Amino acid sequence: MNIKTKRFLLPENEIPEQWYNVQADMVNKPLPILHPGTRKPLTPEDLYPIFNEACSQQELNQTDSWIPIPEEVRDMYKYYRPTPLVRAYELEKALDTPAHIYFKNESVSPVGSHKLNSAIAQAYFCKQEGITNITTETGAGQWGAAMSYAAKAFGLELAVYMVKVSYQQKPYRRSIMQTFGAQVTASPSMSTRAGKDILTADPNCSGSLGCAISEAIELAQATPHCKYVLGSVLSHVSLHQTVIGLEAEKQMAMAGEYPDEVIACFGGGSNFSGITFPFMRHKIDGSHKETRFIAAEPASCPKMTRGKFEYDFGDESGYTPLLPMYTLGHNFQPANIHAGGLRYHGAGTIVSQLLKDKMMEAVDIPQLETFKAATLFARTEGIIPAPESSHAIAATIREALKCKEEGKSKVILFNLSGHGLIDMTAYDMYLAGDLINYSIPDETIEKYLKEVEPLNK
Amino acid sequence: MNIKTKRFLLPENEIPEQWYNVQADMVNKPLPILHPGTRKPLTPEDLYPIFNEACSQQELNQTDSWIPIPEEVRDMYKYYRPTPLVRAYELEKALDTPAHIYFKNESVSPVGSHKLNSAIAQAYFCKQEGITNITTETGAGQWGAAMSYAAKAFGLELAVYMVKVSYQQKPYRRSIMQTFGAQVTASPSMSTRAGKDILTADPNCSGSLGCAISEAIELAQATPHCKYVLGSVLSHVSLHQTVIGLEAEKQMAMAGEYPDEVIACFGGGSNFSGITFPFMRHKIDGSHKETRFIAAEPASCPKMTRGKFEYDFGDESGYTPLLPMYTLGHNFQPANIHAGGLRYHGAGTIVSQLLKDKMMEAVDIPQLETFKAATLFARTEGIIPAPESSHAIAATIREALKCKEEGKSKVILFNLSGHGLIDMTAYDMYLAGDLINYSIPDETIEKYLKEVEPLNK
Repeated sequence: MNIKTKRFLLPENEIPEQWYNVQADMVNKPLPILHPGTRKPLTPEDLYPIFNEACSQQELNQTDSWIPIPEEVRDMYKYYRPTPLVRAYELEKALDTPAHIYFKNESVSPVGSHKLNSAIAQAYFCKQEGITNITTETGAGQWGAAMSYAAKAFGLELAVYMVKVSYQQKPYRRSIMQTFGAQVTASPSMSTRAGKDILTADPNCSGSLGCAISEAIELAQATPHCKYVLGSVLSHVSLHQTVIGLEAEKQMAMAGEYPDEVIACFGGGSNFSGITFPFMRHKIDGSHKETRFIAAEPASCPKMTRGKFEYDFGDESGYTPLLPMYTLGHNFQPANIHAGGLRYHGAGTIVSQLLKDKMMEAVDIPQLETFKAATLFARTEGIIPAPESSHAIAATIREALKCKEEGKSKVILFNLSGHGLIDMTAYDMYLAGDLINYSIPDETIEKYLKEVEPLNK
Repeated sequence: MNIKTKRFLLPENEIPEQWYNVQADMVNKPLPILHPGTRKPLTPEDLYPIFNEACSQQELNQTDSWIPIPEEVRDMYKYYRPTPLVRAYELEKALDTPAHIYFKNESVSPVGSHKLNSAIAQAYFCKQEGITNITTETGAGQWGAAMSYAAKAFGLELAVYMVKVSYQQKPYRRSIMQTFGAQVTASPSMSTRAGKDILTADPNCSGSLGCAISEAIELAQATPHCKYVLGSVLSHVSLHQTVIGLEAEKQMAMAGEYPDEVIACFGGGSNFSGITFPFMRHKIDGSHKETRFIAAEPASCPKMTRGKFEYDFGDESGYTPLLPMYTLGHNFQPANIHAGGLRYHGAGTIVSQLLKDKMMEAVDIPQLETFKAATLFARTEGIIPAPESSHAIAATIREALKCKEEGKSKVILFNLSGHGLIDMTAYDMYLAGDLINYSIPDETIEKYLKEVEPLNK
């Protein structure tokens, strides 16, 4: 048994005072977001009708490297931050690897995932601007749960549109949101025109994230003093998540190491951005040129490994502006893997530019490999990981085994974005042998990408 | 908003080096545990056939106030200890109370409850003595989950008998145990004589903790190098849990306060003992004579508020030695409240003696009051509490409101023994208005207590 430090803990006063805005330091800035009609680059003012003003400005800020974190937000972070950095000694032992494996444990937040880092910030900015009601959508429910708690903490009323199939299959996440006091509606619903239209065409429609976004935006626009909030993809969400990496940087220094590789799972990019961007600035400034950044995406939703860099819509229905991103096409239908948080067709604009510029890499992981990794991690480190986070674990294990083969000792850091205690149905199915891998023919991907082509002409 | 310290955190090296054994300091020692046949006091050697030797000795140790925590156990504690002490500012604000409310947050353990504190210790001692297999029972599954992880960490094979009704109703907890690699069997089962007998008499029997204990003990005795482990009631379990209170004592000092009242929920007594015993020693030594210790039990299982101090069996089937305790009778059938961890007929021997000597108090709380308290706590402090822990929250709220009425500012500390993320079905039912309070007629209690009388003649 090791009698060594396992958890590197920072005191409360080491919660970062500023978020890191990588956009300001990037050599090649992300391409502009375009109005789909005029194809003119959007200004913050164009976003005000939907988002609060502070987040609208953050979204397009390409000049300030550091954005102060309001004292009220830091004060709420104190409930669970700084989160621990953990050296995964037992996992290393099980893999018999010379690699040093660390993970940042975001699962200790009260709602069980990193999502709270941005939920608190967005709720605060809404409150500051006199907004009383907010709307959002949620797929598997991690973002909805975080936003429900944050809204309650700042005295805002929240309406969540939850994808109907999740609403029925994940009753625990729905209950969590309701316990925090949010109003949760299965989407599509009869409460919006978008929902009505879809239900009229298909009364049995089980919903999609695209439809839920449309409903949430529509309700926000129809309600006085109401704005819409989103939990991933956008640059201001990534910004808020950088507290993860900023803390991890200090904690790695406590451990006397610097990561050779930083790994996170990838859905819309919020947890990946959060842990990597602060380390990325040292790759940009040349002080740590060799660090590798690896995004782990599902093999069944391979936008970064098999998608194309194009202008595309952020939602299925095409209601958003045009975003420059790696995409599988906004109509792409990901297989029903048990990692709902990663079933999204595109990557955020910053990450897409970084991938294009080879500042980072992406790997795709089949479903069974993620659950095998998750089970090993649970049995060695004692934490049952979220199926989403398990993609990062699987990628980490691949790298650690490579170290063993090559006899090299590398320092690997991954982000444990959340725990899987509410995802036990998926573990049950895995242990019973009821899960499968999905393979996607090239033709399928080509078909959906063809639908994006006209947007780029 | 308060810009004050919310969480009082201790560094890893402040994990206690010794457990506190209150038995040694008690003015009136607990009465001896008796062999049911000979009625002679048990010796540690009498317990060796069932329990490991170290725990058997701890069980009956009334001389050593401090028991060293093995370095390997402290090393495992490092994965989640010291746990935070939190000032519940938002709850105070919602109650508009002058009381200062603190809680020790044991829900941050990887399995979500305090149970791991003893599971790790018991697994370690078994391993040390060359034991390779262990058995245990679990009701709602908190103990089983903790033991599954601890067993895996020390390379022990674990068989868990899970009360059949919970096995069916709480599939997530069963999955957690299986994910950690434990073998989980619904009890009654055909794998033991005890189980077979019960199933033969009643093929549809949905099980009980008493039956599951019998099955686990029987399997342990029939298996070479195998011992049985238990998660509450016994004095060695309480001993291991004192890390909670020992840390809390240091953390209260960091906050510059000392509790006027220490509150915990009460099932078999493990989390109550854990947080109170270290503070109890200052009541015993006279340095803090006025501190009140309050056990919060369900109104539907009121062993301390309406039971009797008698010799009784620890299990339903009467296979254990005779324990001197406050009891409702070992055949008492608690109502089906959604706090499975508190549905037990008796209190441990130490706590029973302390209650008899008026060193502590007990209150009983109706189910609806616990869920009302839980929901308020979730919406203010952001953590969804386990239904068991919600009894402590409800008792705390009663005391805090009393402070408000009387215009007194007291310092209240309670133990948040676990989170309720896997108990959302109960929250759903509460929010839908489907939960009820249970009242137990005096005659019912008298009836079961009559069955205990012959044991005391």
